[in-house]
Amino acid sequence: MKIIIVGASGTMGSFLANTFEKEHEIVRADRHSPDVQVEITSPEAIENMYRQVGAFDALICTAGPTYVGPWKNLTDKTFRNGVEGKMMGQINLVLIGQHYINPKGSFTLITGALTHEPQRNFANASAANAAVEGFVRAAAIELENGIRINAVSPTVIENSPQYFPFFPGEIPVTMKQLEYGFRRSVFGANTGQVIKPQ
Amino acid sequence: MKIIIVGASGTMGSFLANTFEKEHEIVRADRHSPDVQVEITSPEAIENMYRQVGAFDALICTAGPTYVGPWKNLTDKTFRNGVEGKMMGQINLVLIGQHYINPKGSFTLITGALTHEPQRNFANASAANAAVEGFVRAAAIELENGIRINAVSPTVIENSPQYFPFFPGEIPVTMKQLEYGFRRSVFGANTGQVIKPQ
Repeated sequence: MKIIIVGASGTMGSFLANTFEKEHEIVRADRHSPDVQVEITSPEAIENMYRQVGAFDALICTAGPTYVGPWKNLTDKTFRNGVEGKMMGQINLVLIGQHYINPKGSFTLITGALTHEPQRNFANASAANAAVEGFVRAAAIELENGIRINAVSPTVIENSPQYFPFFPGEIPVTMKQLEYGFRRSVFGANTGQVIKPQ
Repeated sequence: MKIIIVGASGTMGSFLANTFEKEHEIVRADRHSPDVQVEITSPEAIENMYRQVGAFDALICTAGPTYVGPWKNLTDKTFRNGVEGKMMGQINLVLIGQHYINPKGSFTLITGALTHEPQRNFANASAANAAVEGFVRAAAIELENGIRINAVSPTVIENSPQYFPFFPGEIPVTMKQLEYGFRRSVFGANTGQVIKPQ
């Protein structure tokens, strides 16, 4: 299976790329990736990525920039970080990628527990996550040729302890649990699901 | 209580304005309202509205433009209808309005069943609704001075039969049920809730 991983240099993306490359052809996509560069806030850059990669079987996105910071600094301007990044970046990966993906292929996007379990400083991510999840459910009934779409929604992950203080009481997801969440989406048959890797 | 109703000339907004004005001071806001004009896709227009109205106790928004149409026409460009309208329009009503609203005031936004029950042609609304609901949950833990925020999430409403064919099997919400949903948010004590008026 040919799998594009967008965000391949990040904590989640690099783990998944290293794990799945034992069994599959992995295309590592990122802002500065040696495989293929992409800036997901730009629809043109996304289109260029797909043109370069050609037909593929699965896209995984683990990239999702948002604004993190005090509520008093949350304005239309700062809110755009998550709107253009985690939300429209991922939605455009699907709207554009549907024209390049093989029949029966799949899209797996990243959201997070903040959709339903808000934390201080993360309102932008709560909205962006929720938007992606709403989109995933809607896209699942529209995509043709057996193309599937899901979101993986972890809480904090064990390899990112710098976030633990912001998520009091959240039991970190292990990298293995995270891997299994993505496996369920990419290699399973579900569509329109928000998968909690726990 | 002084209540701003944004979308006051629409089906829902005019019904709520006519109902609540028996007991409260209502400010009808809309693109062409005689009370106060506002175009919610513009943060400047929102700021102007609040400056004109001055201190208030509750804001109800029933305005939420989105793109409705075939999936094949859904692109970054058409998706912006819902991003700028129903999503950021409503989010900016809160981010800006929090500086004008009285202590213990409330914001009540409009979402809809499409968040969890997608229908063909409405993926943009599914994402925008979900974003607003994620924002409402997050804003509820950030807003100060006892300010509350909720969303009302109806399915099709009885006074808009033109939408019935697009929502097969959805039992229309009566205008009375809709009114009660908004009453729960505006006059109750809940915050961070997505209220289904049924």
